[in-house]
Amino acid sequence: MTVTGLTRDDALAADSDDPLLKHRAGYRLPDGVIYLDGNSLGALPIHAPARVATAVEQQWGERLIASWNAVDAAADSDGWIDLPTRIGDKIGRIIGAAPGQVVVTDSTSVNVFKALAMALELRPDRRVILTQGGDFPTDGYVADGLARLLGRDHRVRRLTPSALQDAPSADVIQAIDSNTAVVLLSHVNYRTGAAHDLAAVTAAAHAAGALVVWDLAHSAGVMPVDFDAIDADFAVGCGYKYLNGGPGASAFLAIARRLQDQVSSPIAGWFGHARPFAFEAGFEPAADINLGQVGTPPVLSMVALEAGVDAVLAADPDAVRTKSVALTQRAIALADARLADYGVTVASPRDASMRGSQVCFRHPQAWPVNRALIDEGVIGDFRTPDILRLGFAPLYTRHVDVHDAMDTLADILRTRRWDAAVYHARTTVT
Amino acid sequence: MTVTGLTRDDALAADSDDPLLKHRAGYRLPDGVIYLDGNSLGALPIHAPARVATAVEQQWGERLIASWNAVDAAADSDGWIDLPTRIGDKIGRIIGAAPGQVVVTDSTSVNVFKALAMALELRPDRRVILTQGGDFPTDGYVADGLARLLGRDHRVRRLTPSALQDAPSADVIQAIDSNTAVVLLSHVNYRTGAAHDLAAVTAAAHAAGALVVWDLAHSAGVMPVDFDAIDADFAVGCGYKYLNGGPGASAFLAIARRLQDQVSSPIAGWFGHARPFAFEAGFEPAADINLGQVGTPPVLSMVALEAGVDAVLAADPDAVRTKSVALTQRAIALADARLADYGVTVASPRDASMRGSQVCFRHPQAWPVNRALIDEGVIGDFRTPDILRLGFAPLYTRHVDVHDAMDTLADILRTRRWDAAVYHARTTVT
Repeated sequence: MTVTGLTRDDALAADSDDPLLKHRAGYRLPDGVIYLDGNSLGALPIHAPARVATAVEQQWGERLIASWNAVDAAADSDGWIDLPTRIGDKIGRIIGAAPGQVVVTDSTSVNVFKALAMALELRPDRRVILTQGGDFPTDGYVADGLARLLGRDHRVRRLTPSALQDAPSADVIQAIDSNTAVVLLSHVNYRTGAAHDLAAVTAAAHAAGALVVWDLAHSAGVMPVDFDAIDADFAVGCGYKYLNGGPGASAFLAIARRLQDQVSSPIAGWFGHARPFAFEAGFEPAADINLGQVGTPPVLSMVALEAGVDAVLAADPDAVRTKSVALTQRAIALADARLADYGVTVASPRDASMRGSQVCFRHPQAWPVNRALIDEGVIGDFRTPDILRLGFAPLYTRHVDVHDAMDTLADILRTRRWDAAVYHARTTVT
Repeated sequence: MTVTGLTRDDALAADSDDPLLKHRAGYRLPDGVIYLDGNSLGALPIHAPARVATAVEQQWGERLIASWNAVDAAADSDGWIDLPTRIGDKIGRIIGAAPGQVVVTDSTSVNVFKALAMALELRPDRRVILTQGGDFPTDGYVADGLARLLGRDHRVRRLTPSALQDAPSADVIQAIDSNTAVVLLSHVNYRTGAAHDLAAVTAAAHAAGALVVWDLAHSAGVMPVDFDAIDADFAVGCGYKYLNGGPGASAFLAIARRLQDQVSSPIAGWFGHARPFAFEAGFEPAADINLGQVGTPPVLSMVALEAGVDAVLAADPDAVRTKSVALTQRAIALADARLADYGVTVASPRDASMRGSQVCFRHPQAWPVNRALIDEGVIGDFRTPDILRLGFAPLYTRHVDVHDAMDTLADILRTRRWDAAVYHARTTVT
């Protein structure tokens, strides 16, 4: 699937050829809106409401505590206790990790903390967490906080983000040295969509004796990851973006099986214990991926997440990536053709192999432009200072949506409709 | 309300005098079951299903990302972003903390980690976390893990649990010394129901220059706490027990306002930043209770929790405590009268002022006895090695439920129905 023409009819033709189009019916999308913010909050899978209602009304309301072990009276049905690893294994299929290496738990930030602390524990003679400026801030915040907490000369080294087309992975690879304990990187940058070369960075880190924590928040579900094939160490990721798990859905933590008997969680909660319900006085970490858990899992949020993950698993991942590339290419081509005159530049990599499933544009008035777009039914996202970010979810975004969104954007810029007073007020941003 | 007689008619009479009886209609309780495990998983508040459904179908499904700032189109309606502090303030009313001191976030275990690390940060010259053996294990696990992580001679000192009637608070108070940085205690013991004297321990710790982290998991919602009145420092607690927030509901973290500008979270995630949506490169902790947050809050679980918290707030807390005392007294009196002959001993304090809203019994065959009870419709809990624990939720447990449960228990013991092979098999326990 490539972009063969830029008219609306071309977009409609691409949709009619789209093998994923049928998946769009699996999501509830509001009328009159083109939703290009699935990388901030994925759309509602149509099966999620009933599953959540069952968890609330039958599992909680009727069976109460018994649902921890079996959610209905049939003794062989999984209970809530299995949700973190059952959904974890499903996410494992999405990110190329064999069963037993992914657990759904906590938030991405808490999981970054755990993964970094485990990596530092594995490299006690090294002091540097290597990361990249411009990645989603929480990862760097957590790294700084951990270094400060440990107070043993650990430090966070932030690489200056390079120009996006200049192979950021090469810069990282060059910076890894014998003092690097762990490399912490976003696979796909949350603003620009620039993607790292997972295999090359991981191999370079390993060659230098370092470990890698990959943040897959903006790639899981839309990009190939191949956790096992690249010999990954740790990964974290988000449940509420392209996995469509709902607002604040639990995050995931992946720990390579070969490391699981060498690490323990810095937050040693009972759900990470080898025998949580024996209530033993001393902590013994689980010998499997459960070691990544801490406290009691938020069941209702997890049930919604499973609906989202199941819907992703029902689609061919190669088709998802192919369509993702085509959608972003269409957006970029339309921007080149129709937005350049109004001061819009494309800030995402033009090489599709280095780009996630989003496109970001720079414009000095990105804030009011985004407000005007929202008012006209196109939901994208503003990111400071001057970025308009459009995310494309191949399971429910159509080519015609991309076309119409770019058409609306061009028209707003042409007529300067963004320059109304109402669009300049700054309020809370999410 | 006192126990004036032990017949079933006496229990029915107590119920007819109960000013809280009307609250029972606020919970969905399964037919044919006496549910005495609300201290493990509270019952479903009748308003929770509709609220969760609205959050899923309207807020997530229709308004999507916009719901972070306003959950319906009226601009002045709170958004999801306010849930952690809005529900936190409500829990503050339940635990006697003025607004701005409680936030709903993460799990209890993660919150213990944060609170302990903050306390240690405030007492950099002290090395001891003082706690008590026999408290819920996760708290001690987390403390041990934190001490190990810090690696600076911090250590956890565990007091041997004293005989329950021997004033455990006095033992703790005696053990606090000039090397005690922080005291970590459960207000109410998860097995025995023994309650600490919050005011006395807090005052003694402060007199010795130490801080206190109170775990209110087994008291919030059924016991007076008076966070402000006792000059408490930190508290954590659970959303899914007597607050009836649903399985794995988010926990809460309370930080006294006077400490909020002196501490920072050891897990420095973006939701704890002063300006999370400015995406700044450096971390600046929020100057208010938001500093206790880490990652994106699990909205669906929080919405259910708010329904549970609202239902608790609708009841008079003095009446709740009075009824709680009466229910536990009835259970103890019935045990003395009818179970002693079968080897059952009361392991909870007989002094009501030292007892939470649960009663625990010891019996060498507590495991099969509990299985038999469940089979006959009485849901309590087994705790290793020999404890049968019955929890009483004054908002939905009736006196007649206590009577009938104890009656069933007496009959199971009298006839040795627990001694059937089917009840001896050990499987996963929750």
